[in-house]
Amino acid sequence: MKIGVFDSGAGGLSVVKSLLADNLFDEIIYYGDTARVPYGPKDQNTIIRYSLEALEFFNNFEIDLLITACNTVSAYALPEMNAQSSYPVVGVIEPGVLALENSDLAKNDNILIMATRATITSRRYELALEKLGHTNITSLQTGLFVPLVEEGIFEGKLLDATMEHYFSAIEQPKAIILGCTHFPLIGEKLKSYFKDEPILIHSGEAIVEYLERRYDLEVKEEEASLKIFASDNVAGLRKIADDWL
Amino acid sequence: MKIGVFDSGAGGLSVVKSLLADNLFDEIIYYGDTARVPYGPKDQNTIIRYSLEALEFFNNFEIDLLITACNTVSAYALPEMNAQSSYPVVGVIEPGVLALENSDLAKNDNILIMATRATITSRRYELALEKLGHTNITSLQTGLFVPLVEEGIFEGKLLDATMEHYFSAIEQPKAIILGCTHFPLIGEKLKSYFKDEPILIHSGEAIVEYLERRYDLEVKEEEASLKIFASDNVAGLRKIADDWL
Repeated sequence: MKIGVFDSGAGGLSVVKSLLADNLFDEIIYYGDTARVPYGPKDQNTIIRYSLEALEFFNNFEIDLLITACNTVSAYALPEMNAQSSYPVVGVIEPGVLALENSDLAKNDNILIMATRATITSRRYELALEKLGHTNITSLQTGLFVPLVEEGIFEGKLLDATMEHYFSAIEQPKAIILGCTHFPLIGEKLKSYFKDEPILIHSGEAIVEYLERRYDLEVKEEEASLKIFASDNVAGLRKIADDWL
Repeated sequence: MKIGVFDSGAGGLSVVKSLLADNLFDEIIYYGDTARVPYGPKDQNTIIRYSLEALEFFNNFEIDLLITACNTVSAYALPEMNAQSSYPVVGVIEPGVLALENSDLAKNDNILIMATRATITSRRYELALEKLGHTNITSLQTGLFVPLVEEGIFEGKLLDATMEHYFSAIEQPKAIILGCTHFPLIGEKLKSYFKDEPILIHSGEAIVEYLERRYDLEVKEEEASLKIFASDNVAGLRKIADDWL
C-alpha cells in the first residue's frame, strides 16, 4: 500500500514515525506545506483551499490513500478533499476518538482535548465524544506548546510554566487527546504533570490501528520507503525527519 | 503623502500606531499577508517571492512610498522590492539603527538585538551597528514572544518565565532593539526586567523620525485616513486594529 501523508508543516512526522514502526506499508510520500504553516489560526476557507492545493501535489504520485496528519485539516477539509480525489482521504480525528473508545474509560471520566484554536473551535472531537455518550469533556486551546516544541524545548522551567498556565485551573483528566501533531513530543511531560498518569491518545498510533483494522493490513518484511517533500525549506524538514525518525 | 504599509501579519499595526500619532501623512494603506504569516521561519527565496507579490497588491493604489513594517522583509527583500516598484520602499532596519545612533550611547555600551530567526540570521542590524563602531552587541533569537503577544499575554508568570529563559545568562543591555513588530507590546515589561531601564528602539517611532527628516514632512491638521486589507481573515485584523489603535 502506497500512502500519502499531508501536513501543514513538520509536525506530521510524528504520525510518520508510527506508520514506519509497524511495517504495514510499502511506500510513504510526505508533503509538508512549510511555506504556509501554521494552518491553525487561518480562516476555514483558506484551510480548505490550501488542502485542495495539496491534492494537486499528490496527483504526481499514484497513492492508494491519503492521511491528513494535521488536526486542523482533518477538522475542516475532509469532505472537500474526498470529493475531489480518486483515493480515500482519512483524517486523524475519527481514529483518535475510536482509540479512546477502545480504552476502558467510563462515560463520566474527564477527557481533556488539547489542540490549537481552529481544531478546538471546530468542536469535532467534542461532538464525536458527546455522541458516544461522554459527559465530562474539557476543551482547551493550548497553542503555545507548538512554538515551544519547534524551538526544541521538551523540558525545563519554561515548559513547566506553560503547563501551569494552561492546566492549573482544570479538572484532573483520565485521558488526554493530543489534538496537534506537535504534542506527542511532550507526551511524557504531560503524563507526569498530572496525577495518576492519564491515557494519552496519539494521532499516529490511532491511525495505524484504524487502518490496520479497516484494510486488514499485514506486516511486511521490509520497512516502508519514505520520500519527503515541502513547499519551502525542504532541507530543514528533512533534517527534522532525521532527528525524529 | 499617501503611504503603504506592508507586514506579514498584524504586527505592523504597531508601526501604523506611530504613523498615526504625528499627523504627518494623508492616507495609509495597510496590507497584512495573514494567510502566510509568519515569514520569520521561511527561506530567503520564499520571503522575497511573497514580498514581491505584495507589491502587486499595492499597484491597486497610487502610493508615494511603501514601508515594510516587518523586520524579516526589511532584512531580506528590500533591494528586490525597490527594483520592481516605481515608488521608494523603506524598511525598518536602517531607521532603527539611526535612531540608536541619535541616542547618547557609548561605542562599548551593550546593545541587545531581539528578533526572530530570519532577522537575526541575516545579521543586518549587527553589521550596521558594527559599521558605526559599536563593539558590544548581543544578538538573540527571541521568537517565543511572538505567540505570547498574539495570545494577548502581556504580563504574568509565563511572560516572566520566557524572559528568564532568554535573558538570564546575557549581559545587562544599555539599549534594546525591538527587532520584531510584536515586541513593542511588551516594551514596558522588558524595561522593568532589566536594571537601569535600557533605551528601547521601536521601529514605528524610528521610521516616523526617519521619514520626517528625509522628506521634510509637516504636521497636518487632520489625522491620516487608514484602510486595512489582508490576504486572510481581514475581519480579525480589523478587530486587532480597533484594539491597538
